[in-house]
Amino acid sequence: MSDPLQSWNDGAAKSAILDFVARVTADGGADYVRPAERIATFDNDGTLWCEQPLQPQVFFLIDRVKELAAKDRSIRERQPFKALLENDQHTLHTLGKQGLLELAFATHAGMSEEEFDEIARRWLATAKHPKFGRPFTHLTYRPQIELLELLRQHDFKTFIVSGGGIDLIRAFAEEAYGIPREQVIGSSVKLRFELQGRKAVLMKAAELDSFDDREEKPANIGLHIGRRPIFAAGNSDGDLAMMRYCKTGPGARLALLIHHDDADREVAYDREFRLSPLMEALDKAKEHGITVVSMKRDWKTIFDPAG
Amino acid sequence: MSDPLQSWNDGAAKSAILDFVARVTADGGADYVRPAERIATFDNDGTLWCEQPLQPQVFFLIDRVKELAAKDRSIRERQPFKALLENDQHTLHTLGKQGLLELAFATHAGMSEEEFDEIARRWLATAKHPKFGRPFTHLTYRPQIELLELLRQHDFKTFIVSGGGIDLIRAFAEEAYGIPREQVIGSSVKLRFELQGRKAVLMKAAELDSFDDREEKPANIGLHIGRRPIFAAGNSDGDLAMMRYCKTGPGARLALLIHHDDADREVAYDREFRLSPLMEALDKAKEHGITVVSMKRDWKTIFDPAG
Repeated sequence: MSDPLQSWNDGAAKSAILDFVARVTADGGADYVRPAERIATFDNDGTLWCEQPLQPQVFFLIDRVKELAAKDRSIRERQPFKALLENDQHTLHTLGKQGLLELAFATHAGMSEEEFDEIARRWLATAKHPKFGRPFTHLTYRPQIELLELLRQHDFKTFIVSGGGIDLIRAFAEEAYGIPREQVIGSSVKLRFELQGRKAVLMKAAELDSFDDREEKPANIGLHIGRRPIFAAGNSDGDLAMMRYCKTGPGARLALLIHHDDADREVAYDREFRLSPLMEALDKAKEHGITVVSMKRDWKTIFDPAG
Repeated sequence: MSDPLQSWNDGAAKSAILDFVARVTADGGADYVRPAERIATFDNDGTLWCEQPLQPQVFFLIDRVKELAAKDRSIRERQPFKALLENDQHTLHTLGKQGLLELAFATHAGMSEEEFDEIARRWLATAKHPKFGRPFTHLTYRPQIELLELLRQHDFKTFIVSGGGIDLIRAFAEEAYGIPREQVIGSSVKLRFELQGRKAVLMKAAELDSFDDREEKPANIGLHIGRRPIFAAGNSDGDLAMMRYCKTGPGARLALLIHHDDADREVAYDREFRLSPLMEALDKAKEHGITVVSMKRDWKTIFDPAG
C-alpha cells in the first residue's frame, strides 16, 4: 500500500498520527470511535497555509482599502485608512481594537454574503504572496493536505476553526482543502436578513459576532459542531484552548502543534521571535500531551509542488 | 422501484417534491445542482415532530423545574417558578421576555454541554406526550422521515434550523432523523470554556446567544452553513424568512409549508386558532411560491407506526 503521508518524514509525529488513526478505527478495539464522533479540527493560518510575514487576510484587507480609496479619494485622508495606505507603522500600532475593527468592517461588511464571496474569489485568483510570488492558495502545506485526506479516508469529518474571517476561508477551503463551507468556523460579523426588492439576502453588518481565537475556538466548536473533537491541530497560543478541549475528553485523542522552525524553507519563530504567536503552547505541549510537529524535521516538503 | 415517499398521497405536494429532486439531480440538465450545494433546511417543531398542545421543549422545561424544586424547596415560592409549578396561567402570561429567559436559563444553563446532553437524553427516554401517551421521539412525522431519506439518497445534506434549543435537539436528531449534531442549528446560550481541575469543558452560561426564529433563521444559516439552501420546510410564520431566503436564490428551489389541518389525526390550526403560529405564511404562500402541504390530504400516515 502506498504511504498516505508521503510528505512526512518518518519520526515521532508521523508515527503518532498513523498509530492514532489505526487505534480509533480498529473495530472492536479498546479505542474504537464510531465514525459520527470522528471530528477533526484544524486552525488555518500557519497550520494549513503560510501566515508569514502577515496573514493572507491582512494582505486582502490592505488591497481592499486600496480599492476603496481608488473609488473614494477622501478615504486617503481619514484614519485609520491613511495610516494603512501610507504604511505608517507608528500610527498602526496605536490603533487599538476600535481602529482595527473599523478596518475590518470597512473591508468585510456592508455587502451581502454572496457579494463578499465574489470579491474574495476575485482577490484569491489574482493576489500574490510578496516573498514567494505565488497565489496564497498555492502556499498551503502539502503534508497537511495529505493528513486531511488520510483522516477523511478514515471517515473523519474535517473542520477549520480559524481566527480568520469565516467567509474569506469559505471562498477557497473547498478547492484547497476539500473542506466544505459548512465545515468552516471562523471570526464573523453579524448577518442581517434583508429584502432587496423581492430578493432576500444576508447583509454583513459592521458589528462583531465572534472573534474566533483562544477560548472562543472551543466555544464555537460547541456551537457549530456540538461534539468534542478527537483530533485538533494548531500552531499558536491561540489554538491552545482548542487543543486542551480535544485532549481532555475520554478515549484516544491527538493534538498536533505545528512548530515553524524552518527558516530556510519557510520561517522560524518561537520565544526568541518578537511578537511570536507561539509561546505558552510550545512550553506546555508536553504537560498537555500535545505532539509537536517540527516543520524542519517532520516535513519532507512544505508547499504543494503542484501549486 | 419502490415508492420512496410511501406515506405521501399522490397529489401536488408529492409531485412537486419528486419533480424538484429529479430536476436538481439530472446531470447536464438546466436545473442541475452539484451535490455540495444541495442544502436542505428543516424547521423541527411542527415540521418534523408534533408541537401541540405545547412544544416538547416546554414539557422538558416544566419537568426540569419540578426536578429543581424537589432538590431546593425555596424554588416553589419564587417567581417565575411558582407560577409554572402551580400552572398559574395569569402570571405565566404576564412574565414577559425576562421571566421566560429566567425559566430557560434555570433549566438549560449552569452545566456543561456534556452534562446537559445526559439530562436531555434521560428525559427523552422517559417522558411521554400527555395526549398520545408515547415518548416525544415517537411523534416524529413518518412522511418527513421519508422525505429526509429521499433527499439524502440524492446527496442532499439535511439540516435542522429550529427555534428550539440546539442541545435538546442534538440529543435525539441523529437517532430520530439521521441528522448529525453538527447539522443542527437552534436557539442557544453562550458557551464558556472552563477548566474543571485539568479537564476542559464548555459551560452553558445564563446568557442568550441566539433566538433562532424568523429573520434569525436565515442569519444562522449564513453563519453555520454559508450556503443558501435550495430546499426549506417549515410550518409557521417563524419559518417564512428562511423559506424566502431559500426561494429567492437562482435556479430550482422548493419550499414546503406544512399545514396542520388534521384535527382527527393530530391537530388543526390556522387563522381561526387563537395564538396560531401560522398566519402570514399561509396567506402569502402563493405569492412567494411556497408549496403548501396539507397533513390531511397529503399524508397517508402522520406518525411513524414503528415508533
